[in-house]
Amino acid sequence: MTETNGAQALIRTLLACGVDTCFSNPGTSEMHFVAALDSVPEMRGVLALFEGVATGAADGYARMAGKPAATLLHLGPGLGNGLANLHNARKARTPVVNIVGDHATYHKQYDAQLESDIETVARNVSPGWVRWTQSPAEIGRDAAEAVAAAQGPPGQVATLVLPADVSWSPGGVAADPLPARDRTPADSDTVDAVAKALRSGEPCGLFLGGSALREAGLVAASRVANATGARVLAETFPTRLERGVGIPGVDRLAYLAEFAAHQLDGLRHLVLVDAKAPVSFFAYPGKASYLVPDGCEVHVLAGGDTDAPGALEALAEVLGAPADGATRQPAARPDLPTGELTAQTVAQAVAALMPEAAIVSDEGNTSSLFTPGLTAGAARHDWLCLTGGAIGQGMPVATGAAVACPDRQVINLEADGSALYTIQSLWTQAREGLDVVTIVFNNRSYAVLNMELDRVGATAGGPKAKDLLDLSRPDMDFVALATGLGVPATRATTGEELSDQLGRALAMEGPSLIEVLVPSLM
Amino acid sequence: MTETNGAQALIRTLLACGVDTCFSNPGTSEMHFVAALDSVPEMRGVLALFEGVATGAADGYARMAGKPAATLLHLGPGLGNGLANLHNARKARTPVVNIVGDHATYHKQYDAQLESDIETVARNVSPGWVRWTQSPAEIGRDAAEAVAAAQGPPGQVATLVLPADVSWSPGGVAADPLPARDRTPADSDTVDAVAKALRSGEPCGLFLGGSALREAGLVAASRVANATGARVLAETFPTRLERGVGIPGVDRLAYLAEFAAHQLDGLRHLVLVDAKAPVSFFAYPGKASYLVPDGCEVHVLAGGDTDAPGALEALAEVLGAPADGATRQPAARPDLPTGELTAQTVAQAVAALMPEAAIVSDEGNTSSLFTPGLTAGAARHDWLCLTGGAIGQGMPVATGAAVACPDRQVINLEADGSALYTIQSLWTQAREGLDVVTIVFNNRSYAVLNMELDRVGATAGGPKAKDLLDLSRPDMDFVALATGLGVPATRATTGEELSDQLGRALAMEGPSLIEVLVPSLM
Repeated sequence: MTETNGAQALIRTLLACGVDTCFSNPGTSEMHFVAALDSVPEMRGVLALFEGVATGAADGYARMAGKPAATLLHLGPGLGNGLANLHNARKARTPVVNIVGDHATYHKQYDAQLESDIETVARNVSPGWVRWTQSPAEIGRDAAEAVAAAQGPPGQVATLVLPADVSWSPGGVAADPLPARDRTPADSDTVDAVAKALRSGEPCGLFLGGSALREAGLVAASRVANATGARVLAETFPTRLERGVGIPGVDRLAYLAEFAAHQLDGLRHLVLVDAKAPVSFFAYPGKASYLVPDGCEVHVLAGGDTDAPGALEALAEVLGAPADGATRQPAARPDLPTGELTAQTVAQAVAALMPEAAIVSDEGNTSSLFTPGLTAGAARHDWLCLTGGAIGQGMPVATGAAVACPDRQVINLEADGSALYTIQSLWTQAREGLDVVTIVFNNRSYAVLNMELDRVGATAGGPKAKDLLDLSRPDMDFVALATGLGVPATRATTGEELSDQLGRALAMEGPSLIEVLVPSLM
Repeated sequence: MTETNGAQALIRTLLACGVDTCFSNPGTSEMHFVAALDSVPEMRGVLALFEGVATGAADGYARMAGKPAATLLHLGPGLGNGLANLHNARKARTPVVNIVGDHATYHKQYDAQLESDIETVARNVSPGWVRWTQSPAEIGRDAAEAVAAAQGPPGQVATLVLPADVSWSPGGVAADPLPARDRTPADSDTVDAVAKALRSGEPCGLFLGGSALREAGLVAASRVANATGARVLAETFPTRLERGVGIPGVDRLAYLAEFAAHQLDGLRHLVLVDAKAPVSFFAYPGKASYLVPDGCEVHVLAGGDTDAPGALEALAEVLGAPADGATRQPAARPDLPTGELTAQTVAQAVAALMPEAAIVSDEGNTSSLFTPGLTAGAARHDWLCLTGGAIGQGMPVATGAAVACPDRQVINLEADGSALYTIQSLWTQAREGLDVVTIVFNNRSYAVLNMELDRVGATAGGPKAKDLLDLSRPDMDFVALATGLGVPATRATTGEELSDQLGRALAMEGPSLIEVLVPSLM
């Protein structure tokens, strides 16, 4: 019988804990982990050409699978390349088991070329759980704790640093999973206090985030709203929002603080349900950062480790809201677009053709302004957003979601500027045969920054500033880029072309990309 | 008269300190810096589509310009995306002024979506100098100190964190440059002690790195070698190595520890000249990490802040080496290749056609094995290497070198796997009209990892492991990728095609890319 090494014990423990997918961009220090994949064939290794693809895919996977994937990254620089999408996962409270290979323990003293302070980087995205595993005998226990820490609740990025010699040495001991921690039930006093506010006759709002944005939470929130007249709003960029026919619709808080202030205007009570009190995405000279209106009392119904849907249901019961008292979204689809393509007509095509149970990874940014509204009455689907604001998330999240849900169609709404951070995702989609249709809005501009240049009051923005936000010199050709990465692609310039191309892409197995040329909204 | 804001004072100070180029990937929190570019037109803003391009370009720029460029990055995630190439710059001891925008000071308390602990990430690449600038009145002083810290000697990455409100607020005060610090002259006792070792009759070696690898240092080292019989070796991945006709040639220490051990075998004295004692790049089971032979005494002639060429010259004088006693490289060019393309015949074409004063950015990895040897007798040129081992450096470094040296031809030798980390560099090359010819060695494999899989003793590497190192599913098409990013590209499959295409590319202004299909050496 072959002796188990550290890497094998690690992979066996991950599998025992339900982690059976590893988004990987390995180097030499991870070669024993890679080799161990053949001895533990149940672990699926998914190769990414760039670490940001691997980490964003782990985020997208966990959002849809409801359990973590592992990543496999190469020392400090590999973690750095994966950092932006781990930041997004942290803000999404997505569970991720982040495995960072390191030099052999005895090699670190020599300050070789790839030596760096991994911990200082890891703390940025894993403030709650970073561990160096020290021996093959401990690796199983460490891995089981990493999975438990990642799962929470709330979910987090748990980083396990894996020295090469721990990976390759014999004596590996796998471990059993730790017991899962359930979410805490809502406290009845808290529910009563919130109910009292909702019955006060003063203007009230429910602000929903995280786990409150799945069907159960939305149904309960709608019951409460119908029973009390409270407004319901969702956070601006939800981790996963269930929507479409049969699910109560919910407006998201606007990205622009001016519009968000309008949505919140006049409230005297704001009830937080797995969400933080709303703040402006950025600061702007002379404008408020904290968006809760003056004189509005904030109530916390459910924090990140609370059973948020259960809390909303308890609230609905206390308020005497009828069990069937939710307003569910009726079917409503726009016609297929014709003529000129704009951000709005692209949204129309998506809404008209979206299949049942689609997953939308939305990083369309300014160009995606109309898609939520027009798809509200489409078949039931999930909407995944840019949780941490670090662009380059949409394509990796789409990739991971497709790995998690091979029977569902993924639609990735993607802005041109954002696409170029993690365009390598397309290659992994081709390699794994993932059913992702990517629609790239090519407006040849960092449009959101043109808008922000004005909004921050940077009125001195002259030709040099504008030029630094311009993506038209040279024009990017996304059909060529997709082709170069092995994904079939087309370009649509009219509503008819897009309708035709999107229909074909959705009918086809495997990935495809459609580049739509649209005028910038900004 | 318009009042100066923080951003304007910052840019004016940078200019006063000689920093006139800023490789940028800004976001909303950096919009006032962007706007200020129009009021201080001498600052050149170079836009990158991805932060790793900006940071690697700043590294390449400084290697060739001999002074730092600035970067402009967007909060913690932007710094993360730029981290790998800042790691390479740190290991290269390249001066970089790293400017990271942050939320307005009063906005940080709200933990908005892009909020994260920037300092913990910055410490990884800027262990010596990180500062939050606190007010427009202090920004000039802080920027001048950042430039001075970056310049060293030795050079380093200095990170200045720039809150948005410091950028936009009035009362900005620019500052004058701080006096430059000269390198320390060599200590005469040290020189005498090294001279004594070199005269001992025992086998001696000079190990050169950093600033010792320019012409002055190489000439002095050659004089010493000729006078004493000492071996001369350069570090494995130099920051900048001057070579070609008229310059003393030097062998680099091999990447593979087995070969490196052979190069160092039998030495009783090893003299370090702006280099660290040689260690293995990675640890391997049962193999030594520290490569200095047992019983070999290590002498430090010059550390990172010493005048290394001066120390070598002093040593040559003490040893009585004649002033004209260096062995200078004679001209030697191979013929143009014909027939099948291999890593060797590609190197032959490069060597045959390399113009005077070329700059080679070498991230060819395994496929670049033959290029140093075959180009040794080419016209005088500079060779820039992967200093920190974090792949994805070659294309950005080529980009920055071309910005620094508009009159010189840049040749980027690039491996397929490495290219995909920072392929967005091509767009910046097209945008800026940079004279870079990129040769992508497409062997459809992470060849170095296939080799390492065996070398680390991971003999269990079966089909799943091999598949995770395979880049042929799907094949990447670099001609399409370059076209998509606005760079003209061709594909060569024979020596004749490559010779023809490379000749045309070198004759042309602006960037181009040639994909060469070569068998993997591993």
